[in-house]
Amino acid sequence: MGKSNRGFASDNNAGVHPAVMNALASVNEGHVIAYGDDPFTADAVGRMKEIFGGQSEIFFVFTGTAANVLGLDAGTSSHHAVICPDTAHIHVDECGAPEKFTGCKLLAVPAPDGKLTVDLVKGQMRGIGFEHHVQPRVVSITQSTELGTVYTIDEIREIAAYAHDQGMLLHMDGARISNAAVALGTGFSEMTGGAGVDVLSFGGTKNGMMYGEAVVFFHPGLARDFRYRRKQGMQLASKMRYIAAQFSAYLEEDLWRKNALHANRMARELHGAVKDIPGVTITREVESNAVFAIIPREVIPLLQEHYFFYVWDEETSEVRWMCSYDTTREDVNGFASLLGSLLERSR
Amino acid sequence: MGKSNRGFASDNNAGVHPAVMNALASVNEGHVIAYGDDPFTADAVGRMKEIFGGQSEIFFVFTGTAANVLGLDAGTSSHHAVICPDTAHIHVDECGAPEKFTGCKLLAVPAPDGKLTVDLVKGQMRGIGFEHHVQPRVVSITQSTELGTVYTIDEIREIAAYAHDQGMLLHMDGARISNAAVALGTGFSEMTGGAGVDVLSFGGTKNGMMYGEAVVFFHPGLARDFRYRRKQGMQLASKMRYIAAQFSAYLEEDLWRKNALHANRMARELHGAVKDIPGVTITREVESNAVFAIIPREVIPLLQEHYFFYVWDEETSEVRWMCSYDTTREDVNGFASLLGSLLERSR
Amino acid sequence: MGKSNRGFASDNNAGVHPAVMNALASVNEGHVIAYGDDPFTADAVGRMKEIFGGQSEIFFVFTGTAANVLGLDAGTSSHHAVICPDTAHIHVDECGAPEKFTGCKLLAVPAPDGKLTVDLVKGQMRGIGFEHHVQPRVVSITQSTELGTVYTIDEIREIAAYAHDQGMLLHMDGARISNAAVALGTGFSEMTGGAGVDVLSFGGTKNGMMYGEAVVFFHPGLARDFRYRRKQGMQLASKMRYIAAQFSAYLEEDLWRKNALHANRMARELHGAVKDIPGVTITREVESNAVFAIIPREVIPLLQEHYFFYVWDEETSEVRWMCSYDTTREDVNGFASLLGSLLERSR
Amino acid sequence: MGKSNRGFASDNNAGVHPAVMNALASVNEGHVIAYGDDPFTADAVGRMKEIFGGQSEIFFVFTGTAANVLGLDAGTSSHHAVICPDTAHIHVDECGAPEKFTGCKLLAVPAPDGKLTVDLVKGQMRGIGFEHHVQPRVVSITQSTELGTVYTIDEIREIAAYAHDQGMLLHMDGARISNAAVALGTGFSEMTGGAGVDVLSFGGTKNGMMYGEAVVFFHPGLARDFRYRRKQGMQLASKMRYIAAQFSAYLEEDLWRKNALHANRMARELHGAVKDIPGVTITREVESNAVFAIIPREVIPLLQEHYFFYVWDEETSEVRWMCSYDTTREDVNGFASLLGSLLERSR
Repeated sequence: MGKSNRGFASDNNAGVHPAVMNALASVNEGHVIAYGDDPFTADAVGRMKEIFGGQSEIFFVFTGTAANVLGLDAGTSSHHAVICPDTAHIHVDECGAPEKFTGCKLLAVPAPDGKLTVDLVKGQMRGIGFEHHVQPRVVSITQSTELGTVYTIDEIREIAAYAHDQGMLLHMDGARISNAAVALGTGFSEMTGGAGVDVLSFGGTKNGMMYGEAVVFFHPGLARDFRYRRKQGMQLASKMRYIAAQFSAYLEEDLWRKNALHANRMARELHGAVKDIPGVTITREVESNAVFAIIPREVIPLLQEHYFFYVWDEETSEVRWMCSYDTTREDVNGFASLLGSLLERSR
Repeated sequence: MGKSNRGFASDNNAGVHPAVMNALASVNEGHVIAYGDDPFTADAVGRMKEIFGGQSEIFFVFTGTAANVLGLDAGTSSHHAVICPDTAHIHVDECGAPEKFTGCKLLAVPAPDGKLTVDLVKGQMRGIGFEHHVQPRVVSITQSTELGTVYTIDEIREIAAYAHDQGMLLHMDGARISNAAVALGTGFSEMTGGAGVDVLSFGGTKNGMMYGEAVVFFHPGLARDFRYRRKQGMQLASKMRYIAAQFSAYLEEDLWRKNALHANRMARELHGAVKDIPGVTITREVESNAVFAIIPREVIPLLQEHYFFYVWDEETSEVRWMCSYDTTREDVNGFASLLGSLLERSR
Repeated sequence: MGKSNRGFASDNNAGVHPAVMNALASVNEGHVIAYGDDPFTADAVGRMKEIFGGQSEIFFVFTGTAANVLGLDAGTSSHHAVICPDTAHIHVDECGAPEKFTGCKLLAVPAPDGKLTVDLVKGQMRGIGFEHHVQPRVVSITQSTELGTVYTIDEIREIAAYAHDQGMLLHMDGARISNAAVALGTGFSEMTGGAGVDVLSFGGTKNGMMYGEAVVFFHPGLARDFRYRRKQGMQLASKMRYIAAQFSAYLEEDLWRKNALHANRMARELHGAVKDIPGVTITREVESNAVFAIIPREVIPLLQEHYFFYVWDEETSEVRWMCSYDTTREDVNGFASLLGSLLERSR
Repeated sequence: MGKSNRGFASDNNAGVHPAVMNALASVNEGHVIAYGDDPFTADAVGRMKEIFGGQSEIFFVFTGTAANVLGLDAGTSSHHAVICPDTAHIHVDECGAPEKFTGCKLLAVPAPDGKLTVDLVKGQMRGIGFEHHVQPRVVSITQSTELGTVYTIDEIREIAAYAHDQGMLLHMDGARISNAAVALGTGFSEMTGGAGVDVLSFGGTKNGMMYGEAVVFFHPGLARDFRYRRKQGMQLASKMRYIAAQFSAYLEEDLWRKNALHANRMARELHGAVKDIPGVTITREVESNAVFAIIPREVIPLLQEHYFFYVWDEETSEVRWMCSYDTTREDVNGFASLLGSLLERSR
């Protein structure tokens, strides 16, 4: 790697923000009841409810995959289907966890920018009421998407309206919801429950937390059996206070916003610094904290000697560069400069 | 509660040991690859392999329930059965997670002291080779048991020998394995792989860690697909270094042993302090860090005003008092003294 | 075997009643729409609804195991539990199919005569509302039981009342429901929906049909998604008319009653013919078409050379003799006479 | 409908062939052991083994969906994936039964003629060895396909070779395997085990049987636990002799061949009779017993008044006409003639 050991592999390669680390220490005194019946959890849930409204129900789990799977589970039976883009994390990066736990089929739709539209959803509405077919029950979108793009609030509203009209729920995978919120310049609520989202996976691990995600239900009915499903899904933390403390710190003084603003800004700067280098083709809109580009195949390992990152598509030689809350301008400039010289040399 | 806020509800009501907390901070520098491909995880796995032998395979997960479920899953198909005592955590405290994930039936055997014997296992060996019956495939024991008792190494050996003879595996739920090891005055290996255990859930959360447990396989074949199952089971931590760091600290300088020795000692002292109080009937052997007793029903809420603990059996008015690594002699004496005066007053 | 090849192994060793066989031929003309949208299915469903009431919903599946599993599935989620006697077919004879498909845990209660009581059910009502525990949701009884005993209508009513009071459903495995109905001298409805049963597996295969069972729901709400679950459970027959035709024939002119009356009568005669033979100990009340007895171990294989039957309990040398609709008085007398001489010789 | 009540909806709308019906009656004498341990089942299995070779293992189940699901289950764990065309019955017509029972994800590939190729399979071989991805484990093809096309033996061999090279299995859904065999002028074995198929769903219901399909394993290892899985999958018939008898009759004197030859011939004649009618566009190769065509939308209901059939694609107005073993030349001519006049009138 470069002078630092920071790369552009993933925002989850970063460590824990000092404010979060301090929060862990701050709740480490004495005994509290396990499994969430403690004041620290009450505090964190209270802060979340302030954001998402009094009708919302909040539950902490360990991972983003768990938040997605258990959130989808809450609205479905095994003969249902979940409509999602074919780039969705639930479809390609969770090793079949949604199918395993919910029994549902995922209907994955090609969506070049990682975003569903009403038309794409409509194309999957087949065999409704026909017992030979799985029945579409949830539409799942990721905000910001796996390709770094961001749904506008209007786009979310349209999908939500169509889904509800068809008796379906709208699920949002918000593993990078903070990056999306700052990209849109909005709060969490307007983009989620306020736009018609029914179930939200609210993530913080990629933006400075250590572990722990939240499932947010916008209708209490959906949450009815969640406590049992969370335990059955092996996601009930005994020492819950340490997840709760992270969330409280994350929401305190807008830590989430500062971190995400920084990560997005670094991505914009990275984009600016590399987009005109000959040999670099930017492949996706840079709307949050990811930059996707096609670069010559032979340059990749040379670059990876100094900065770790992942190849997104082996066939096209497309790579992904993620920025995180702790990416520095030096990282960005050092990276862009190295890329420039490698590409110059390779010509 | 008393002067402190420490009760006797559960060892997971305690906080995180300072050495573990320091370890979290010590690995918080810079970027490392996510999902376990990092030097901190390599270090922790290496320490575990030193203990459990080069043939062992080590995987970190989030919770004890997950360690149990995924460990059982590794050796089974859904038409198999798991034989366990009817007090087993997998049977009564995991909300059906084993059935949900593995599909297997649990054959739960009444065992008054929480310990299986070869004879009790034999009684469940019915319908072998008969397609209408689930096929016993795993025997699961808990060390130390949910009733605070401890299997001797010979007892484990006998069950293992019988299980292997019948083509079955032996699983050990080691949520409190440290308390058992110090009770027996032995190391981890002699009591597990060395005694014939095939799969072990190795727990530390109840003995000073924050979160994270390990699944230990004693035959590499059993671990073959575990990486996929862990991900599918929603148990793959992205920031794995923070689980690993806890394990390294836990094994460093025998922290596990000091903590467990202390908790067990406190239980013995508690036992000594209450056993002769009129109105107290000790109901189980005090072999690790739990004391079980029957006390008059009406005294329970009065006692709970000062020290939180759980009623184990509503019908018989049996209660459970757990000691943990941070229980103090003052806690024990204060509790015993309060119990004594409450009982005296109630006569 | 004796002069005939009929034994006492099981009522499903018998063939198909001629009236049922004729019914199959009678619907074999031309094309009809597959999967149940045909007039023959409408006829059979109509006959069932006449019996069970206009609020009932009727679905055909292939096997009794399927009827049980899909019936239990309709009222449950995977964190629920099903309370049943430990002799229940769903617990010991379905190779874990209920757990596999529904994810639920079965709470199996020792019940010496194969019959649950309210007290036995109460003993399983633990951890209600506690997320670490599976939540009891269905009580399942078998009528007539696996031990040949029969619940009275009052006994069913009491269990139903308790179950409903606790927010639970009552499921009845009616694999031998006809034998129970004639034993009680009642119709199907009084003993099922009329007594509070919510879901019924209605069997005919053991009483003269070839294949096919019915799931009967007594509340339309329970049946809401059943069509999909049946298909997903691999139980939707394409050529449904042939299951339907059997049911129509079975209900026509009380074929079910004649067959069951005969089978029960043969069991009573068998009981009468053997009960006083020295060396024979009758072990269960003979209330339907089964006779259970303990006989000397060494006599069993000699008897089995002529009449096939199953050993129920290897340890106690208890055997089960089932009578069926085609058992003859000659079978009974021949069997009793052979048993008598074998026992005389063995003394 | 026309003079007869036979339509072109599906080959499973036809009744049971008289020879099969006679076979049912012929095994209806006396008692035999249930669940397959009877001479009739031995006979049918023996006949199947003669066809498929001594290494093959044969199991009867109730439905084609069950044969597919349980066959796929035998080679997979829940973190595996099944690659299939997006027209596959397992993907679109089984209400998620494969996902529910096996836990696996289906990777469905667009394949315009319903046939996979090695290139199409290769396109799904992503993330091999990467724990975030499901691992491709089975390739599933349908013979003849859901679009009426037929794989050549060489095409099957190529897919098998590639699959095996990648450590995968080849599954064949043979719901209409007889139609494919006569289309290719070959026997069953050359097209299945002989061409590299590992697991076969062997269907007869669509070609003159009443119910019952067979799962054929070409390696005994795959069949090891099948007996238990079949029972757990609710597919073990108690009165197995009646499935067995159908298979024996079906294989006796090449009944399967005569029936399939006839159905295919009728499809060819139907194709010949309609293909040149103005307004009819044949959309798929007519290689087995199906004819696919686009006809004007408004004609469909008029035609359906006389002959029932299904619309395959609402958007394009494509319809499917299936011929069966009992389709007559009069049916074909009457249908073609009616279609001709309706189309003439609609111009």
